[in-house]
Amino acid sequence: MQKTITVLPPGTVANMVCGFDVLGFALHEPCDEIDITLIDEKRIIIQPDPVYHLPTDPEKNVAGAALLAMLDAMDEPIGFDITIRKHIKPGSGIGSSAASAAGAVVGANMLLNNRFSKEELVQFAMFGEKVASGVKHADNIAPCIYGGITLIRSIFPLDVVALPAPDLFVSIVHPQIEVRTADARAILKQTVLLKNAIKQWGNIAGLVAGILKNDHALIGRSLEDHIIEPVRSILIPGFDELKQRCMAAGALGGGISGSGPSVFMLSSTKGKAEAIATEMQSVFNRLGIDNHTYVTSINATGVTVKP
Amino acid sequence: MQKTITVLPPGTVANMVCGFDVLGFALHEPCDEIDITLIDEKRIIIQPDPVYHLPTDPEKNVAGAALLAMLDAMDEPIGFDITIRKHIKPGSGIGSSAASAAGAVVGANMLLNNRFSKEELVQFAMFGEKVASGVKHADNIAPCIYGGITLIRSIFPLDVVALPAPDLFVSIVHPQIEVRTADARAILKQTVLLKNAIKQWGNIAGLVAGILKNDHALIGRSLEDHIIEPVRSILIPGFDELKQRCMAAGALGGGISGSGPSVFMLSSTKGKAEAIATEMQSVFNRLGIDNHTYVTSINATGVTVKP
Repeated sequence: MQKTITVLPPGTVANMVCGFDVLGFALHEPCDEIDITLIDEKRIIIQPDPVYHLPTDPEKNVAGAALLAMLDAMDEPIGFDITIRKHIKPGSGIGSSAASAAGAVVGANMLLNNRFSKEELVQFAMFGEKVASGVKHADNIAPCIYGGITLIRSIFPLDVVALPAPDLFVSIVHPQIEVRTADARAILKQTVLLKNAIKQWGNIAGLVAGILKNDHALIGRSLEDHIIEPVRSILIPGFDELKQRCMAAGALGGGISGSGPSVFMLSSTKGKAEAIATEMQSVFNRLGIDNHTYVTSINATGVTVKP
Repeated sequence: MQKTITVLPPGTVANMVCGFDVLGFALHEPCDEIDITLIDEKRIIIQPDPVYHLPTDPEKNVAGAALLAMLDAMDEPIGFDITIRKHIKPGSGIGSSAASAAGAVVGANMLLNNRFSKEELVQFAMFGEKVASGVKHADNIAPCIYGGITLIRSIFPLDVVALPAPDLFVSIVHPQIEVRTADARAILKQTVLLKNAIKQWGNIAGLVAGILKNDHALIGRSLEDHIIEPVRSILIPGFDELKQRCMAAGALGGGISGSGPSVFMLSSTKGKAEAIATEMQSVFNRLGIDNHTYVTSINATGVTVKP
């Protein structure tokens, strides 16, 4: 049995504009790196993280909590010793906590010869999300584990529907401002107009059809959000101008990644994705907001083993 | 140019449980029959209907209003003389008015060598729906014209997404009670809880994925409605028992067809569809409500020419 493995869990974009709380997709970049060693006692050891000083108490660590849930499902005297090198900045809105949790359980499962199903791994990793945000949610975890685009049709009981990865490019900007997930959730209204809900489910239905048909134009037309974006976008300075300029530069559509502050845009060519990233930079530079951009594509695989 | 044609516009099921106002599918049975003759003056003639005594004034007749919209889009001195034999009972909730409107414009368009696109035909036929119910809607019109399952992603501007027809059987019961579309609409709440809207768009996303993957189990799991059915089902006596008995007889799922009173159920085999129809009959017979059942399947073609 292999005793040590290094895995690369990717960043993920949750919500995907009209798919609030149910859709998400995996990116090729950025990825965290996690070294995982199988040990012969039933415990989790988290090595100290010199950059972000994340908790080393496994119950308070996102990856640790996910692995403890996995140990709970086993009877043997085995555990894991892990070292996490974060490249996905915590609080960026592109699934940093999900990458830690999903990467840890996928890597550990590889050391166990894939004893658990992907759906079980999602269940374990959700304990990590609970540590991160207080809520068990799977819209970043599932694409990180399955790759491509995933639909969480239902969370209780868990029903993950794996969708293919259309050949789309993704531009992402992470403005260095803080948007707390709890705040982004608190400002949402708990009721919505039926007529807006109908538009939203027309759009998510169009988006899923576009994804399965690899129809870029339909995907673009469906990337409309009448419910969440009008409220949450006020937390991101320059959002409306940013979106307009990205669309003018050839974006099919896009919006807030997860609960922000990162913003993503989809496009059909790498050239457009690069032009969009340039627009993104220029908007935030002019506002005096430090920012970081990525030009990448949808990752059909999810967590991979570092060669 | 052919001068007379007889077309068979099929019944349709709108809403499809979780797809309120956006999804619909076409049936193989029942179908109306419409004879259409091209005439050389710019007018519409509606022959009297001996059974239902529908209006013969084209502006007040569903098929007439649709054809007048078509004539408005042309410059020549041509018109149509039509005879409608209704087999889809008005008020049944399986797209009776849509069949008249869609059948008329599809047949007329055939006599014009398919001058208009399907999307234009939907636009014309919606004028018929406006006569029938006061509202321009396309969730029965579109599947009648396109066949299969259709998604109305947006109505202004019109965006029809054609989805394939999974190999499913359909059981339908039409209990002979009156549910006025206006009443069925009036009892709906104009706001919904965000948490229920999220469940609904998770389900419609799952349903569309199931349709495109021809995944019967996923289609079944997705046929849940947390918003419309709990309100509207009170208009249909015995609805809850009916649904339970159909599920026990092997239905994948189902619900109210359009705004009712018909109820439809999907299943994977003809044998199950027949057993379900028997349950349907027995529930309404016991309640002393006259009823009529159909066992049919999803019609991938839409309006056809009578051989």
